[in-house]
Amino acid sequence: MDLNVLKDLTIATPSKIVLMVMDGLGGFPSGPGGKTELETARTPNFDRLAAGGMVGFHQPVGPGIIPGSGPSHLGVFGYDPIQFDIGRGVLEALGIEFDLQPADLAARGNFCSVDSEGRITDRRAGRIATEITVRLCDKLRAIAIPGVEVFVEPVRDYRFVLVLRGNGLHDDLTETDPQREGLHPLPVTARTDAAKPSADLVNEFIAKAKEILKDEHPANMLLLRGFSKRPDMPTFRDVYKLRAAAIAVYPMYRGLAKLVGMDVVPTGTTVEDEFNTLRERWNDFDFFFVHFKKTDSAGEDGDFDRKVAAIEEVDAGAAALFDLNPDVVIVTGDHSTPAALKSHSWHPVPVCFSAKWARPDHIGEFGEDACRRGGLGTIPAVNLMPLALAHALKMTKYGA
Amino acid sequence: MDLNVLKDLTIATPSKIVLMVMDGLGGFPSGPGGKTELETARTPNFDRLAAGGMVGFHQPVGPGIIPGSGPSHLGVFGYDPIQFDIGRGVLEALGIEFDLQPADLAARGNFCSVDSEGRITDRRAGRIATEITVRLCDKLRAIAIPGVEVFVEPVRDYRFVLVLRGNGLHDDLTETDPQREGLHPLPVTARTDAAKPSADLVNEFIAKAKEILKDEHPANMLLLRGFSKRPDMPTFRDVYKLRAAAIAVYPMYRGLAKLVGMDVVPTGTTVEDEFNTLRERWNDFDFFFVHFKKTDSAGEDGDFDRKVAAIEEVDAGAAALFDLNPDVVIVTGDHSTPAALKSHSWHPVPVCFSAKWARPDHIGEFGEDACRRGGLGTIPAVNLMPLALAHALKMTKYGA
Repeated sequence: MDLNVLKDLTIATPSKIVLMVMDGLGGFPSGPGGKTELETARTPNFDRLAAGGMVGFHQPVGPGIIPGSGPSHLGVFGYDPIQFDIGRGVLEALGIEFDLQPADLAARGNFCSVDSEGRITDRRAGRIATEITVRLCDKLRAIAIPGVEVFVEPVRDYRFVLVLRGNGLHDDLTETDPQREGLHPLPVTARTDAAKPSADLVNEFIAKAKEILKDEHPANMLLLRGFSKRPDMPTFRDVYKLRAAAIAVYPMYRGLAKLVGMDVVPTGTTVEDEFNTLRERWNDFDFFFVHFKKTDSAGEDGDFDRKVAAIEEVDAGAAALFDLNPDVVIVTGDHSTPAALKSHSWHPVPVCFSAKWARPDHIGEFGEDACRRGGLGTIPAVNLMPLALAHALKMTKYGA
Repeated sequence: MDLNVLKDLTIATPSKIVLMVMDGLGGFPSGPGGKTELETARTPNFDRLAAGGMVGFHQPVGPGIIPGSGPSHLGVFGYDPIQFDIGRGVLEALGIEFDLQPADLAARGNFCSVDSEGRITDRRAGRIATEITVRLCDKLRAIAIPGVEVFVEPVRDYRFVLVLRGNGLHDDLTETDPQREGLHPLPVTARTDAAKPSADLVNEFIAKAKEILKDEHPANMLLLRGFSKRPDMPTFRDVYKLRAAAIAVYPMYRGLAKLVGMDVVPTGTTVEDEFNTLRERWNDFDFFFVHFKKTDSAGEDGDFDRKVAAIEEVDAGAAALFDLNPDVVIVTGDHSTPAALKSHSWHPVPVCFSAKWARPDHIGEFGEDACRRGGLGTIPAVNLMPLALAHALKMTKYGA
């Protein structure tokens, strides 16, 4: 549903919605005839939530599309991930919780190695340690470019973020990484006339950085990719009339939540911490996005049992919900990360949608098989928020 | 499906389609583990229709959207309710079966009370009786505005419709109702340059009306909202090649049917009258929209049992269908009005789609639980008409 249409229909009410995202929740059977991670996990609290609502699947971006974390979260937040394109530079900046301003131009950077002719010998500079990247970023911060402020922020290993802050910056720029060793880094070129001054500024930065790095080893050069600016997003407050809180341990998800106007509230590092924060801040907000990371990490590592354990840990914490008594609880993932595939996948993501006003589907368990029989059906991720608002009685009539 | 695409595919044939709309049909269980209104009702005829076809749900406007009667009917008629926006003025005019012309500018009016300073003291003039509104409308008809014809038509209680008929009228106008008491009515302003002359005409009407009403009590002023013109709709005949009849007791639904080019045929006031009309006019048309109101009224009143009885009454009348032997019968609602919510709701609407050429789903009952398992699935309302046409063999091939 068009966000401009939704905006005219939503109203602020005291009812409360909790959106629990277990990263990479969707799974795959451990073997022929076997169960998925979610089906294997003992989840008495999720099952109880399922019994008080309906289950089904969501598709984060579209059928067959393997979503990255940025698009998949946007989808679950109700923003069409195709329409709201988040560039890699912006995503990398969000991932370190850099406070990106609307006019900022961000790029994802790699330190790399070049030979005496300037040809790339290693696109990742031997995967240098983070502390080296921290030191090199410090040196690059000395670069002054007239008219713009320069930020060079370490991420992890050989990766960093470059942000230029100034007026009139454009992101229609080509990348400098030729994607192959043995070649020279490419100059940045503008894809539009308007972007030409921005290309010049970035090339000036690169020239100065090359000079500063020339005696370093092995990281004596850098590559820049994914030039992008923050997409202009309507906020949760504008569109949904929600005072929304994000409870997330990892910076990337806090950054994504900030992008749509959620308040990122301080929390600890454990699942227990996150549920404690939910309890403590219960009266301050009417929407809570709670993000759990370990399910995805275990899936990426191909560790079926660890993913099962991560799901059970979140289920145990979810017992807290029954005291808080939210009007709508959605338990889902942002995408699937089956341990069997060791990576994000395109498989639809299980959803448990619990609400007093959900038409019952008489299913009292949460797992992929149950979801297929569920009353929610398989829906685009962007439909979750309108449904949550409706079931929380936060929608007015469309037309008379 | 785009109506322009459909238009090139549909053909006129003698096959017959019946679309029965029980207003607000979709329901909600009476209590935990209970049945909905439709599941509670004894519906041997609907069950027999279900056995000869497939069941499922439709979504009138979109997931989570609570549809008004205008948009929901347009959806069922196959017209995207977001694309074809019906303004409140137009809907109010349809509701009294005013014969709105394409160039007419319609507004919804309220009589109100103002104090000696002109500030609103009651936005509904103490909810004056309809007969007072009839008398006041008679007086306002005396208003002459050069270049336009003026219609002032009573609706009910304190409500009336204003229609200006003339050339070049625009509806990009602001409303005069400040939505709060203690304030002055607002002047009408144009949102576009093209609408400025229309704003002047409406303001002239308001000034003259103020003069006429000034000694009335309590209705000594009026407020105008929802300025709108009839949307330019392709007709059932154009798009679907159907000679379509509308059998409906209430003016609003007759008006909506007229908007899409159906012939509104005279009928009585009871369900029996409506089925008699269907029988009598069987040979004159190849599409019949039959509307039943009582299900919605009962739902709005929160009267579960009365809604059950209203469904059973329509089911009894539907026995007539087995003699007529239509090629396609659709039994559905325009939206859900669960008695438990006492209002329109966003819940998908049960559909019984009976047709010789429907792939059987082996479900022989009509109710929300059955619909969830049905072969139709949960589809946008606008898909119903193309499916009806196809199952009635009124479609040609798309492409070679």
